[in-house]
Amino acid sequence: MTKGALALLIHGGTDNWSPQRWKRRFDDVCAGRRVFLLPDPEIDPAEIHYAAVWKPVQGALAAFANLRVIFNLGAGVDALMADASLPDLPLVRVAVDDLTGRMTEYVVLHVLAHHRQEIYLRASQREKRWAPKQQWPASAISVGIMGLGKLGTDAARALNGLGFRVSGWSRAAKNVTGVACFHGKDQLEPFLRQTHILVCLLPLTAETRHVLDKSLLSRLDRTSPLGAPVLINAGRGGLQNEAELLACLNDGTLGAATLDVFETEPLPPDSPFWTHPNVIVTPHNAADTDPDAISRYVADQIERFEAGLALQNAVDRGRGY
Amino acid sequence: MTKGALALLIHGGTDNWSPQRWKRRFDDVCAGRRVFLLPDPEIDPAEIHYAAVWKPVQGALAAFANLRVIFNLGAGVDALMADASLPDLPLVRVAVDDLTGRMTEYVVLHVLAHHRQEIYLRASQREKRWAPKQQWPASAISVGIMGLGKLGTDAARALNGLGFRVSGWSRAAKNVTGVACFHGKDQLEPFLRQTHILVCLLPLTAETRHVLDKSLLSRLDRTSPLGAPVLINAGRGGLQNEAELLACLNDGTLGAATLDVFETEPLPPDSPFWTHPNVIVTPHNAADTDPDAISRYVADQIERFEAGLALQNAVDRGRGY
Repeated sequence: MTKGALALLIHGGTDNWSPQRWKRRFDDVCAGRRVFLLPDPEIDPAEIHYAAVWKPVQGALAAFANLRVIFNLGAGVDALMADASLPDLPLVRVAVDDLTGRMTEYVVLHVLAHHRQEIYLRASQREKRWAPKQQWPASAISVGIMGLGKLGTDAARALNGLGFRVSGWSRAAKNVTGVACFHGKDQLEPFLRQTHILVCLLPLTAETRHVLDKSLLSRLDRTSPLGAPVLINAGRGGLQNEAELLACLNDGTLGAATLDVFETEPLPPDSPFWTHPNVIVTPHNAADTDPDAISRYVADQIERFEAGLALQNAVDRGRGY
Repeated sequence: MTKGALALLIHGGTDNWSPQRWKRRFDDVCAGRRVFLLPDPEIDPAEIHYAAVWKPVQGALAAFANLRVIFNLGAGVDALMADASLPDLPLVRVAVDDLTGRMTEYVVLHVLAHHRQEIYLRASQREKRWAPKQQWPASAISVGIMGLGKLGTDAARALNGLGFRVSGWSRAAKNVTGVACFHGKDQLEPFLRQTHILVCLLPLTAETRHVLDKSLLSRLDRTSPLGAPVLINAGRGGLQNEAELLACLNDGTLGAATLDVFETEPLPPDSPFWTHPNVIVTPHNAADTDPDAISRYVADQIERFEAGLALQNAVDRGRGY
């Protein structure tokens, strides 16, 4: 029996690999299965059972009448969910340990950078100034993580190991060892009131769009040794209201920020974030996923599905992630 | 019975506290014991049983005939050991968890900064350039720690937790979970040959002076995804041969370095390290110790000593730390 074919819809490639390179990699890991890279004139739409996609052209998936599962080649499915013509089929997002580990590296690096006054120390170096400032132990700093999925939970574990006080907030109740867990709209306020460094790892949904606004940022704890609170957004640009975020950085509501994501990417040259003295900009590379690990993950999920097992990390269409 | 008095010899204060503030703190924690801050005309030298010192004037300790224990208010005793008139008495160095935790923060921050291409990314931000480069998982990077005492062991634990491959080198054999342990002169070569990021936490002794020279740095592994190897020195400035270190940075033997310590501190304004594009300079603040924790530690050690218990963290004069 011929195995159902896999169509790759990788518009413009991903940040690190070209569509052709993804095709070769999927050919390697999908032994005995035909893999098509779209557009391909030889494709028979009826033969396609699976699609692996990254920012596909709107409506493109509707062409496959026998499609059974859609795989998104990343953790965030917000771009895909914005397509009103998206077929009502199981949608699986990538959740590989490699991605989790890279995000934890990023969160730990930037929490430590703010905690250890790196913005001040780099400025001191440029001015050839040997001027240590008083420094506090990690135990004096409270890191609050918004989003306690696989990524948030792993970052919390690593920050705990360094001695930080760690809390977390999520939509639904969670229980994570060593983390003070808050949930739901009612507990957002007490969560923010005790947070010195806010790390945002939320998925982008209709509910979370622009959640990082002046109202939220002004409720963070201002009494820490760091002074004004710090924001680290490694989720999605759409989570932040950029005009209000900038105003908060300028009026001292926020002391500093690390931003990996923006409403418009690449960040336009005239964005004030590039030159803001208290902002660290990274080019949406907090957690580049290893294409090798992703392609193996998709191939494994297809094998599971064909063996009658449940798909892992399927998106809940109702909640949006 | 009157308890033996404690003399404080804190020349010029420490980086974070004045001598007077140390005096008040020791008065608080040494209940029932007289504490003198030198110079003090009312002092009876015979009454002094203990001395807590930071860079004391040479010969000053020889004035106390009944001195029993000397406490150094930091982890490194190299400045003290350079005093030929230092009385032959038990010498205790500070080893508080607070100091260990701060050093681990520093090591993790700077290993991650190099691993995550922060020097490149900060330059990109200054040039308003959105240009992510390929990034590798921590498991592709081998961090080698020279010095596997309390500090090196704790840093190794934290780096392991982030997924780095961790090895260590020490004078005498050690066994640390999750760490490939090398020791002695014979195993220095194989240790270096597999190290991508070298972290130096060695004590400064006659044997280790200028150990970080061209000969050592040119033996590090150049085959990592990072390209040329990286040095992080958070030990003592005297461990590095600065002329050779600079030459290695300039000829590509080393790709980058984080330096917290220097042969001359404060680092002179004309030092080329300040402006080197691949060097991160910090002002000897990797592990500022909390004076509260240190004073409690000294008071506890005196109580132990008077109760007939062994002193903890006594320096071995023969090996020099």
